[in-house]
Parts: sequence; structure tokens; C-alpha cells
Amino acid sequence: MNNKPSPPYYAVIFSSVRTDDDDGYAQTIEHMMDIGLKHDGCLGLESVNDGDMGISVSYWKDLESIKSWKQVADHITAQKLGREKWYKSYTTRIAKVEREYSYEKPEQ
Amino acid sequence: MNNKPSPPYYAVIFSSVRTDDDDGYAQTIEHMMDIGLKHDGCLGLESVNDGDMGISVSYWKDLESIKSWKQVADHITAQKLGREKWYKSYTTRIAKVEREYSYEKPEQ
Repeated sequence: MNNKPSPPYYAVIFSSVRTDDDDGYAQTIEHMMDIGLKHDGCLGLESVNDGDMGISVSYWKDLESIKSWKQVADHITAQKLGREKWYKSYTTRIAKVEREYSYEKPEQ
Repeated sequence: MNNKPSPPYYAVIFSSVRTDDDDGYAQTIEHMMDIGLKHDGCLGLESVNDGDMGISVSYWKDLESIKSWKQVADHITAQKLGREKWYKSYTTRIAKVEREYSYEKPEQ
């Protein structure tokens, strides 16, 4: 994450299974990550994909920021295209991060 | 997920960056997934890895289940080996899932 916020803050966990349709997908995801990260209240984003499976977690200051991001026109369009073309299935979970701990290997 | 629980329940979000050391990693992860999924209160597990990046999210009935899973001897050993060998860095976040929504493409 860009900043190192302390809990509590919010996580949006997006788990997805892709279709074979790649048309426009990469460009749209890049645009969503670009404008999402700049959206007020966004604390960071992590995304890992392997084959048709993906988990993306975005982090947010509060529920209001998530709600406001859901209402961005380009995001609404992307979600619609996602259902029509790119995703076989997905689940979105809104979760309040209560605790976190990190490990970083010391330089050797 | 195996079951379809309704919020609230808990998510443990584990984001990691791996080292080049693979020794024992795959077997340990398989064993952890096996015994984790059987652990009382575990609702399911999703894990995606790409190169050295990974995001795993496990879902739990309540904080007590997560605490009890943290105390399993094999899990403690695996965490120790993780820090010594397999992970360059990781962050674990404990989050309370407040809402979820799913999409599944209709059969065509």
C-alpha cells in the first residue's frame, strides 16, 4: 500500500473466475486501477491473477469512499462489461480491517 | 467456499512476496490448506499466486476460530519456516466481512 494506515479501515475483496473473452479487459482493468487509486479515500490495491482465477483487494478509508467509488460512471460501465463479457462468476466482500501485522525479511 | 455463510463472518487476508527458496513450500502449503479447512470454524479458503506474489483469503466463523487456528502446532511451525525461508515479506489482515454480493453468469 502507498500509505501505511492503521486499522480500522476497509477492504473490498473481489474474487473472480474469468471467461475466455479478453476483449478490452486489460485496458479496462488498467484504467480502473488508475482512477481507483486516485479516488478519494483509496489507500491501496493488491491484485493477483493466475489463469482464470483472480483475487483483488482494494483498501479504503471508510464505507463512504467505497460507496462513492461504486458510483463513478466509468466504474459502473466496467462492472456491466464485466458481467456481460469477462467474468464467469465473482464475489465482492466488504470487510472492516480490525488488525494487521506485517513481516519483512531483514537484509542479509 | 464450501458453505454459503451470511455476513457477518471473518476474513484473514494474507498478502505475500516469496523468496527463491522453494524447499518444502508446496508440501507445507498443501498440509496447511488440508488441516486449515478442517479446523473448527473455517468456512473456506481462496488462494491465487503469480510468480512471487500471492494473495490468500481464508474465511472464519468468528475471531475465536482464528485464534484457535493460530495456536495449532503445525501452523506455528509453518509460520516460523515461512519467515525463515519462503517469504520476503507478508501482511496478514483480520477483517470482519459486513456485506457480500455474488454474480454467476447464467448458462448460455
